[in-house]
Order: sequence, then C-alpha cells, then structure tokens
Amino acid sequence: MRISDLGEFGLIELIQQWTQPTTAQNPAGEGLCRLTLGNGDDAAAGTFPHHPVTEFYTTDTMVDGVHFTSATTPWRDLGWKALASNISDVAAMGGQPAWALVTLGLPGATAVHDIAELYAGMNEICTEYGAQIIGGDLVSSPVTFITVALTGVTRGPTMTRSDAQPGHQVAVSGPVGGSAAGLQLLLNNSNPDTPPDNPLIALHRRPHPHVAAGKALAAAGVPVAMDVSDGLAADLGKLCKSSSVAARINTPNIPVVDALKTTYPTRWLDLALYGGEDYVLLFTAPPDVMSAAVKSVKSAAIIGEIVPGPPGQVAIMDASGSAIDTTGAGWDHFTNASAPTNAHQPQTSPA
Amino acid sequence: MRISDLGEFGLIELIQQWTQPTTAQNPAGEGLCRLTLGNGDDAAAGTFPHHPVTEFYTTDTMVDGVHFTSATTPWRDLGWKALASNISDVAAMGGQPAWALVTLGLPGATAVHDIAELYAGMNEICTEYGAQIIGGDLVSSPVTFITVALTGVTRGPTMTRSDAQPGHQVAVSGPVGGSAAGLQLLLNNSNPDTPPDNPLIALHRRPHPHVAAGKALAAAGVPVAMDVSDGLAADLGKLCKSSSVAARINTPNIPVVDALKTTYPTRWLDLALYGGEDYVLLFTAPPDVMSAAVKSVKSAAIIGEIVPGPPGQVAIMDASGSAIDTTGAGWDHFTNASAPTNAHQPQTSPA
Repeated sequence: MRISDLGEFGLIELIQQWTQPTTAQNPAGEGLCRLTLGNGDDAAAGTFPHHPVTEFYTTDTMVDGVHFTSATTPWRDLGWKALASNISDVAAMGGQPAWALVTLGLPGATAVHDIAELYAGMNEICTEYGAQIIGGDLVSSPVTFITVALTGVTRGPTMTRSDAQPGHQVAVSGPVGGSAAGLQLLLNNSNPDTPPDNPLIALHRRPHPHVAAGKALAAAGVPVAMDVSDGLAADLGKLCKSSSVAARINTPNIPVVDALKTTYPTRWLDLALYGGEDYVLLFTAPPDVMSAAVKSVKSAAIIGEIVPGPPGQVAIMDASGSAIDTTGAGWDHFTNASAPTNAHQPQTSPA
Repeated sequence: MRISDLGEFGLIELIQQWTQPTTAQNPAGEGLCRLTLGNGDDAAAGTFPHHPVTEFYTTDTMVDGVHFTSATTPWRDLGWKALASNISDVAAMGGQPAWALVTLGLPGATAVHDIAELYAGMNEICTEYGAQIIGGDLVSSPVTFITVALTGVTRGPTMTRSDAQPGHQVAVSGPVGGSAAGLQLLLNNSNPDTPPDNPLIALHRRPHPHVAAGKALAAAGVPVAMDVSDGLAADLGKLCKSSSVAARINTPNIPVVDALKTTYPTRWLDLALYGGEDYVLLFTAPPDVMSAAVKSVKSAAIIGEIVPGPPGQVAIMDASGSAIDTTGAGWDHFTNASAPTNAHQPQTSPA
C-alpha cells in the first residue's frame, strides 16, 4: 500500500503506533529529564527533576510547491512564516518561544540574496517574539524546503488538545479566514512584489502567532487549546477527536476582519471555516473559566460548545440553528483529496 | 551569486553572521532558559536558572540522492542512520541523547511498508541509546528527506570544538574509514539486500555513535571534542579552524579495523583520512588529561598533536615524518567540488 492510498492522517496514526513501544520501554535521558506530553499535540512537553520550568518541543516544515510558491511568498515572508507556524504551536501550549534550529534544503542554483532575505524574515519574527536561532543544518536538495524545530518554555500550566469536555465552551483568540483570503488575492494577481498594504495579504504573508494570548489563557486556567493552522473546522475536528467529543460552531459568532466580508461577500464564511494558516488559538473551557479567559484576550470570541457525540464530529450551525455541515474534515497532504461534502482547497492551489 | 558559487562552508559562514545580531539583541525565553553555546559546534547548549542540567540541541538531515540512495541504504538502516548522526552530535558534547523530533518529506507513492521499516530502525537505535521519538512532522515532498532534531542532557561539563590549544594531543575514540569502505563495497554490488555480515558494510549501515565514550571523555576532563562525520582530515580541519590552531596527524597511529586493510590494501589510508560517517569522536587535551582519557575509552588512540599554524591547517605525516597532505579539506555539498589535491569522494557517488 502506498501512503497516497492511506492518507496523511492514516499514516500519522500508524506512526503514533510505531513510536509507542519505544515510549513505554524507554525512559530516555537517564532520569535527567522526563516527558510529560508525547506525540499528538501541538508540541511535546518535558520537565527536569526538581525544576519548575516545562519545556515544549515542536517542528514544522515547508516544501516548495506544496506549502508555498514563489508566486505568493517572497523569501523574507517565507522566513517569517517558517518560524510563525512553530511559534504558534508553542503559543497553543501556553509557552514562550525560545530556541530554534533551522534546516534548509536548497538547490545549488539558489541565489545567496534570497537566503539573506529568508534569514532577515526569520530574524524579524525572532526579535518580535523573543526566540533565537541557535543552529541548524544546510543540505543540498533538488527541492527547496525549510524545517524549523523550536523549543518553548513556561513556569505555568500546559494547555493540551485532549481534555475538551461536554459543557465546555469553544472560543477563538482572534479572527479567522483572513490568511486564506489573502492567498486568494495573491493567486489572482501573480506578481510576488505586490505591496502588502491589503490587510488580507498582510494576514497571509505575516501571520502573528498569539503567544501573549496563549500565556493569558493558560494563566486564566483554560485547559484546552490548539492553534488554527489547517482551518477552523478541520482543527476543531482534530481537537474533538483527541478529546473523544464532538462540537457545534455557531457561524454568526465566528470573528472575521471587515475586509474579509467586503472582499468576499459570498465566500467569507467558507474561507473562515476552511481556510488555513490563521495562527490564532482555538480553545475550550468551562463557562466560568471561559468568561474570565475571553476578557483577558481582547480579540477572543466564544463561537460554540463541546457536546457529546461521535469523536471529531463538528456541526456547523447557521443563524437559524440549522446544521450546514458536519464533516469538520480538512485537506489531506498525500491523497490530495478533500472531504467529499466541501470544496476545500489546498493552500497552494489556485481556486 | 548562487550558493553553488559560494559553496556550503561560505554559506554557513554567512548564515552565522546573519543570525548573530538576533543572538546579541535577544535574550530569548524570558529568563526561563539561557543559551551557553550557540551556532558552530556539534550541538548548541542551554541551561535553566538554578538547575544543574545542561541541554543540547542538534539537527541533521538526509536527502534521497544526496546523502543516501536506496541502492546502498535499506529503509531500516536509513532510520538507524538518521538518528545516529544526531546521537553522535550529542555524544561529541559529552551528553546523553533524549528527545527526538522526526520530520519526513515523502512522495505520495512511498510504500507504507517502507515507512514502517524506517521507524523500526529508528526505534532500534532509540532503544539502544535511551533516546525517544516524541513528535515530528509529515509532509508531502517530491524528494524523500528525513530531518531529525534531537536534544541531549548532561550534569557534567560540555566539550566544544573551539578550545584546542597548541600542546594538546589529538585522539580518536575508535577506528575510522570502515564506513566509507563499506559504502564502496555496496556501490560495487548494487543489491541492497546484501546481508550485512561483512564488517565494513555493517559499519556503514549501522554506525554506533560513541555516547559512552563521550561521557567518559567529558568526565575525564577532555575539553575539546567533535564527531567524525565528514572524514577525519576534514573534521580535524574544522576543529582547528574553530580553535584558530593547526594540527599534525601521524598516519601510522590512526586506528582502523583489520578488514579495512585486508579489503583495501592500497587505499585504506585514503579511506581512513577522507571517508565519512565514522561517528567516532575526535578529541584533544593536554597530555596529562589525555593519558587518563584514552585509558577510559578502550578503542581510543592518540594520533597527533595541535600545533601553532594557519587556522584549520592539517598536516598529515607518514611513518618517516614527511608531510603527505596539508589540505584537510572535505566535500562541499553545493559546489560538488573536492579539494584540488585529493580525490575526495562524495558519500553517495561511485568511485
């Protein structure tokens, strides 16, 4: 069987099984460190004996022609985004980004100036978020790829995606759909030098991970969070699957930027539900915790609730309370197939 | 300018400059962690306030057709080797391997069985060395690549590659050249299912990083170590460049396995000096420390000395004390060019 038959999520489940035995048999690190959260969340987490700091570990990769194209992502923005997706994972745990290892796979014909631009973008986001590039690897490759591995730290509690419970409210830390809309605009105008004065394009090119929000939510006692990278509906589906619960989203409550509705008056809801790379946080909490939590994050909005039901099912309700979609599915990297009931788009394909 | 004009090592120097300002301006991690060793060694190192553990951070990537081919590396061995190169970096610092993040870039046509084999090999080496896979990323890619990011830990001192001083003796923790010789045998017999009963092929397919040796050397007070991954002469050249010193190797003292001399009676010294992927440790220390250190590692041998001279220059002396090479250069990934005076071979090209 080929992995394109199995699909990305089927392969991920297998890999989690394959790495399980090692986890059980193998107390790594000779007692000098201890794993507190393994594979399957936005980041793994570990601690050191008799020390209050929890450390997070995450990694994310972008491949040319799969996750970006030169038509929509200049090198400097690519550097920003390669770090942003990792910083967002740390934000989802409630952590502060710390050390980054940067691996570049590059064809020999790559211009040195482009790599300078890439590092300029990475330095910009590191400076803004207090992260630091401390090493990496540089390899020859027929296709350009960028892998970032990032640690994060906290002295506070860790949010996970596996503790959502019926009765929890569901919220997001900011507007969604803007990045996907910006990508649509860029695909319709293939000049990569378009100035990012359009707010949707800026959201696509320079997403700002919600690190401060993540810290505030964790401090407020929010137990469950993940970042929205594959689209609100798909990511809520994953959160629900991890927690063995279902969820309902009330679409009138989903926050979006004004430009999304004005630019895409008929498609804005699809972009908000199924677009990707928003890098806001999706979180759940009991109502009393939620009420304090959303006060601590200005841009946050309660958009639904966790309910009993088939694990991973997400019901999307319109203003009248009728379900308009119950898939919650997302794009699959290997099958190149979207869920049957919705016109999901991969993030690098033209509409 | 293209990176193929600049070369791998030129680009690495630029990247170290580009990431420097961030390092200076940016005390990352909000005081919850502190960087003690940045870019440029086998691994970076950090600590946590008021805690005795030092943590190491390293990453290494293998790209299909560049670092391996299916003709010479079955999937299970590929999994072993992808971890081995990272474990070896941690060994060079004196650390114990701990947490691994594994990123796979895979074409959709990849067989699921091959990925199962890959993880079997990774689990084998993790079990042997007390490391653990705690997460990763899975992406679609036109070319197969494997990136591993690994942490390590120690309560003891950290060895670096930048403190070698004239008067230090130079040693290796075990025999060199066997892996490159095994690769030559495999390239001459392109059947990937050759059983690894040949000791040279076993050295190529299942290199055993010297973690125990690294811990023993650090405990014995050895200040300087790095792992031998690009070939003894090239790696000693890098160590000397980092330390702004030169070195001499006395070739009769270089340890090799018997099979290397019997299989390659005329080429064994070239393979020992310029072959790669040995994953033994190269280390330097003052004579009194060295004498205790080599006693603590059975397979270790003193092979030369650090001398004043042009930073990075390595003089290779024959039994009569005459210099037979003074380049110490290695393979460059981007220019695809070797040093002019020696027939260095890339590790995946036939001789």
